[in-house]
Amino acid sequence: MKKLINDPADVVIEALRGMAAAHPDRLRVDLENKVVYRKDPIRSGKVGLISGGGSGHEPMHGGLVGLGMLDAACAGEVFTSPVPDQMMAATKEVDGGAGVLHIVKNYTGDVMNFEMAAELAAAEAGTEVQSVVVDDDVAVQDSLYTAGRRGVGTTVLLEKIVGAAAEEGRSLADCAALATKVNGNGRSMGMALTSCTVPAAGKPTFELAEDEIEVGIGIHGEPGRKRVPLAPAREVAAMLVEPVLADLDFTGDSGAIVMMNGMGGTPLIELYLMYHEVAQILEKSGVTIARCLVGNYITSLEMAGCSVTVLKADDDLVGLWDAPVNTPGLRWGV
Amino acid sequence: MKKLINDPADVVIEALRGMAAAHPDRLRVDLENKVVYRKDPIRSGKVGLISGGGSGHEPMHGGLVGLGMLDAACAGEVFTSPVPDQMMAATKEVDGGAGVLHIVKNYTGDVMNFEMAAELAAAEAGTEVQSVVVDDDVAVQDSLYTAGRRGVGTTVLLEKIVGAAAEEGRSLADCAALATKVNGNGRSMGMALTSCTVPAAGKPTFELAEDEIEVGIGIHGEPGRKRVPLAPAREVAAMLVEPVLADLDFTGDSGAIVMMNGMGGTPLIELYLMYHEVAQILEKSGVTIARCLVGNYITSLEMAGCSVTVLKADDDLVGLWDAPVNTPGLRWGV
Repeated sequence: MKKLINDPADVVIEALRGMAAAHPDRLRVDLENKVVYRKDPIRSGKVGLISGGGSGHEPMHGGLVGLGMLDAACAGEVFTSPVPDQMMAATKEVDGGAGVLHIVKNYTGDVMNFEMAAELAAAEAGTEVQSVVVDDDVAVQDSLYTAGRRGVGTTVLLEKIVGAAAEEGRSLADCAALATKVNGNGRSMGMALTSCTVPAAGKPTFELAEDEIEVGIGIHGEPGRKRVPLAPAREVAAMLVEPVLADLDFTGDSGAIVMMNGMGGTPLIELYLMYHEVAQILEKSGVTIARCLVGNYITSLEMAGCSVTVLKADDDLVGLWDAPVNTPGLRWGV
Repeated sequence: MKKLINDPADVVIEALRGMAAAHPDRLRVDLENKVVYRKDPIRSGKVGLISGGGSGHEPMHGGLVGLGMLDAACAGEVFTSPVPDQMMAATKEVDGGAGVLHIVKNYTGDVMNFEMAAELAAAEAGTEVQSVVVDDDVAVQDSLYTAGRRGVGTTVLLEKIVGAAAEEGRSLADCAALATKVNGNGRSMGMALTSCTVPAAGKPTFELAEDEIEVGIGIHGEPGRKRVPLAPAREVAAMLVEPVLADLDFTGDSGAIVMMNGMGGTPLIELYLMYHEVAQILEKSGVTIARCLVGNYITSLEMAGCSVTVLKADDDLVGLWDAPVNTPGLRWGV
């Protein structure tokens, strides 16, 4: 295992220390609870937005905390759900009187722990909590850690869009409804060229031959749809986009918000090349790209590979997308 | 070779097509000359800033074109200098009457070709051109493709700072003097956990054993200072920061601008962990961090590894650093 780490047991806490050191102007990190907060306390009357999950997907979620996006992110160990105590601490902390929305990716541990935290926060502090579970991955119906579809790239777009809605003062019910809509409008599919290595495990999560790729991979290295021979980028793009388009109709006047996401070990030059392929397929299919993101946003440690997320847009979603955001991972307008 | 590409010969042009497709609001790409421009023509009276070099270092340079940074970036083939014709086309295009500054990393091909382009543009179009050659890498005195030190991470910081100066209307002479000062104030050192593979070569540039790292690596895989056994992050940080601190005194009231840069294949979780180590060493050495960047800014394809750049700051440099920037790779304040 070749990594820039010290003790494998300390990776998450040391990375959080790095985030705290790098962004003291914007973030405040509760190292005991492993929660990343916005520096300033929540504005009274603003809905609090929390997400979280296993670490190893950076910048998601801690790097997506800030104005116009999350209020707090709970960091679990690598590829391991945070515990209810962390989520409860965060929920109480970002309750500005308008309630708190939990944004949960559909993995059994995350779902269970966020549910428990919501109940505890309601019982202990009277905090009103609503939840949205993101399940946008079209690759497989059930998966290693999931009943139903896995939650992947749409989470990033949802956090941006609902973050903007909370910032402009929408109610908890409205934010929750919007989050449900975004999840319903978003679809993703990913692939891997290589495995990643969880620090505590010390060896690759799975093996792929030198001439083989895995299509439909999960963000923790969960098995996908199929292993196929290494193929040109244009064929890989088709393997990702076609199942997405088959699952939902993205044509429409407002077009789509598209994310070409890297898994952590794939460089930007390849992501731009892939984006070109993806954009051509979408264009041929009558899908207009209203907005896009190209880069590493929801990763799997150092896995080489990529995923495509397509979100059916409308004027409200595009407007919220364009609203200012100031996080370490995503920033514009401020 | 496992990459998300089609034909190795088409990697650069297809990535440029992807950039054009992803950023039509901000960039315009001359595919024939392989030059990335800001979408809008240069403002009359503004100094034009051009950089460029071999591809494979994304987001540098094409992803650093935009308001407050570069006006144009010339893309060579992977790890290969662009040719004078590209640079001359760009130079003429971004001459807004106030002259053009060439920002050149110190590699023999780049230096020679930018010099030739400057002479041609002066002769053919009467464009006034000045150049700054960046040579901030403390690792080695001469290198495979370099007489003198190599130009690496300081280039990114220089493009930001001088870009802001040009945006606020400073003259060509002032921008050139500022660029020279930034180069003089910046020092870098990098390391690799793995090699990268140039698409046209199809095999790794060099071999590193599973328990070995290369310290002082160049951004094209040029040999560094030494190969040593894989070490904990805190020791790796010391191997990078100590030679930097030994080369220049960074203590001072205005502190330093620090970049913790990934080589392309190293995920953000490791870069934040490394940043924490680097920040601790700098603090112990009496160097205050005024501003920082953590992420992939000057990469070597999919190489795993990192580099540290430290730039001695003053009020002018910090003010220019904070000025608005709107590029695909770096954005704030707009």
